[in-house]
Amino acid sequence: MAIEWLSTAGNRQLKLLDQRKLPHSQQYVVCNNAQDVANAIQDMVVRGAPAIGICAAYGIVLQAHQQKDTQAPALMQDAFETLSQSRPTAVNLFWAIEKMQQCYSHYQHGERSQLLEQLEQCALLIHNQDIRNNELMGEIGADVMHSHETIGILTHCNAGALATGGYGTALGVIRSLHKRQHLKHVFASETRPWLQGARLTAWELMQDGIDVCLTTEGAIGQLMASGKIQWVVVGADRIAANGDVANKIGTYNLAILARYHGVKFMVVAPTSTFDISLNSGAEIPIEQRSEEEVTKFNKQPIAPDGCTAINPSFDVTPNSLIDVIVCEHGALFSPFSHSIMQSLQPSKVMPL
Amino acid sequence: MAIEWLSTAGNRQLKLLDQRKLPHSQQYVVCNNAQDVANAIQDMVVRGAPAIGICAAYGIVLQAHQQKDTQAPALMQDAFETLSQSRPTAVNLFWAIEKMQQCYSHYQHGERSQLLEQLEQCALLIHNQDIRNNELMGEIGADVMHSHETIGILTHCNAGALATGGYGTALGVIRSLHKRQHLKHVFASETRPWLQGARLTAWELMQDGIDVCLTTEGAIGQLMASGKIQWVVVGADRIAANGDVANKIGTYNLAILARYHGVKFMVVAPTSTFDISLNSGAEIPIEQRSEEEVTKFNKQPIAPDGCTAINPSFDVTPNSLIDVIVCEHGALFSPFSHSIMQSLQPSKVMPL
Repeated sequence: MAIEWLSTAGNRQLKLLDQRKLPHSQQYVVCNNAQDVANAIQDMVVRGAPAIGICAAYGIVLQAHQQKDTQAPALMQDAFETLSQSRPTAVNLFWAIEKMQQCYSHYQHGERSQLLEQLEQCALLIHNQDIRNNELMGEIGADVMHSHETIGILTHCNAGALATGGYGTALGVIRSLHKRQHLKHVFASETRPWLQGARLTAWELMQDGIDVCLTTEGAIGQLMASGKIQWVVVGADRIAANGDVANKIGTYNLAILARYHGVKFMVVAPTSTFDISLNSGAEIPIEQRSEEEVTKFNKQPIAPDGCTAINPSFDVTPNSLIDVIVCEHGALFSPFSHSIMQSLQPSKVMPL
Repeated sequence: MAIEWLSTAGNRQLKLLDQRKLPHSQQYVVCNNAQDVANAIQDMVVRGAPAIGICAAYGIVLQAHQQKDTQAPALMQDAFETLSQSRPTAVNLFWAIEKMQQCYSHYQHGERSQLLEQLEQCALLIHNQDIRNNELMGEIGADVMHSHETIGILTHCNAGALATGGYGTALGVIRSLHKRQHLKHVFASETRPWLQGARLTAWELMQDGIDVCLTTEGAIGQLMASGKIQWVVVGADRIAANGDVANKIGTYNLAILARYHGVKFMVVAPTSTFDISLNSGAEIPIEQRSEEEVTKFNKQPIAPDGCTAINPSFDVTPNSLIDVIVCEHGALFSPFSHSIMQSLQPSKVMPL
């Protein structure tokens, strides 16, 4: 299990599968407070937009347990702040922190035991609802493809159980297609520089007995030209009000290649990924990570000493290249500015 | 020097810079016969279409020196055959072998010393003419860009001095732009799985004092969208009669991305890369290399054990995505089936 909440009398811990060590070693990192969780997010022990949101929520619970004086807002505020600064692009992080902040504000002046109980319930609800949403989105995505023949899917990075509370967003759709016996091929893009496709997606799918074939990103054009791929399915880190999607670097390339080859492009993300405060993807902050992630491999240099590199961790795919966005409320189509707003109508949003 | 011909009284050797060990170690492999050269080509001690053609030519000279009975055609025929089977896609290999075969046929019944002399002169001519062609193409390519402002260039794989007799094809154009002070940025695509961009192109350009910035292939879409790239410049392994171009896997992606962003796409290759016996790129044989080049890195696994992968070494870019092909006779434009035939008119071909 990638995210495990350990609860014993009076003690709480968050146990995370260390995703930097997969697939060849299953090691765990245990977090005892908000700073531990922020470090785990920043260092990519855990990654994936929904997963880091869930972890941040648990981080607040840990912090509240650690601090005897949880009614002192300044101390808790530090924890909210620290977690908010762990990574900039995935909005699910801020969404989960906001939920926890609302819960904290509501109960901070009451009994400490009730505050702790309510914070923990809120974090568990965020986690469990994420899993339910993923199962739902898996079915909706598979319905949208409604193919009578088996199909070929390409996915990028890891939008699986490891990136979420469980089941996965893009990999949730792949799991649902697999159950329906509608899968012909799954190709996983290796996803440089961090190799989430090779290390995480291939591992996850193989654990579930789903055949997967790895490809470098460079080989995807000719793969699409060969006719073996009908759909590209990816997750998202933030979706602007107009449907522009920030996701792992390389997603934008795939959307352009898909459009050129007549391959359909699906984004799978819960509404906690929507950020309607931003008009377009141009406003989404893009994390720039260390050059060494590109110039070194396992700390061994692969480029000449002193060689510079760019390493944006995400890119923005414009709504015009997206055929469908699947959220827990259904499948959204163009014009996305309209369908996204509709999906967020209070009557359609489940209580949290 | 990547390809060095060592000639002492009665003895010949081919000394190759081992490109598998760059950029952190400069080691050399010495070849004494055709089989040594074929192994070096197959194992990628030396790579790059023009370079492997040159090495194959020298391989024939080595073999002729090794064999006392060079007038026995069967023995030499084995050498021609072994070299022909070393790699399948780059046509320069077969072109150079054909030149050597013609020379051998012409002189095989004369004096042994004259045969050896003529074979060596032919190989040296192939090598030297390649360098001259590259210098010429560098100027032609820079002329085609005829920019009054400095420009940003993206190159893929390594089409440099290491891939040719010297100076390079795509990197020849970059070197010429640098001399004219017309370069604003050079971005090198790292080029998975073999990382020729990170290991070879970055090293070559840094040796010449040309600033280079490394990028993963996944980050190229957003880089083009940022407006920092005006031209993509690549080499070629084989060009069909209609102008379809086989080149390092990932080239086709870049051509699609370039067209989408209004970035120009230039192929730089001597006419020895043209294969007018093939009507289109669909007929070009594409080498499929070992899955382990994708699933392992420096022999360390990066994917789960048993994970399958595709590893085509080349792809085909259709002529419709190419703005210009630069050869030693000039710049060729669409319709390429016409301009390529014109470039091969006997009156325009330099003697060899």
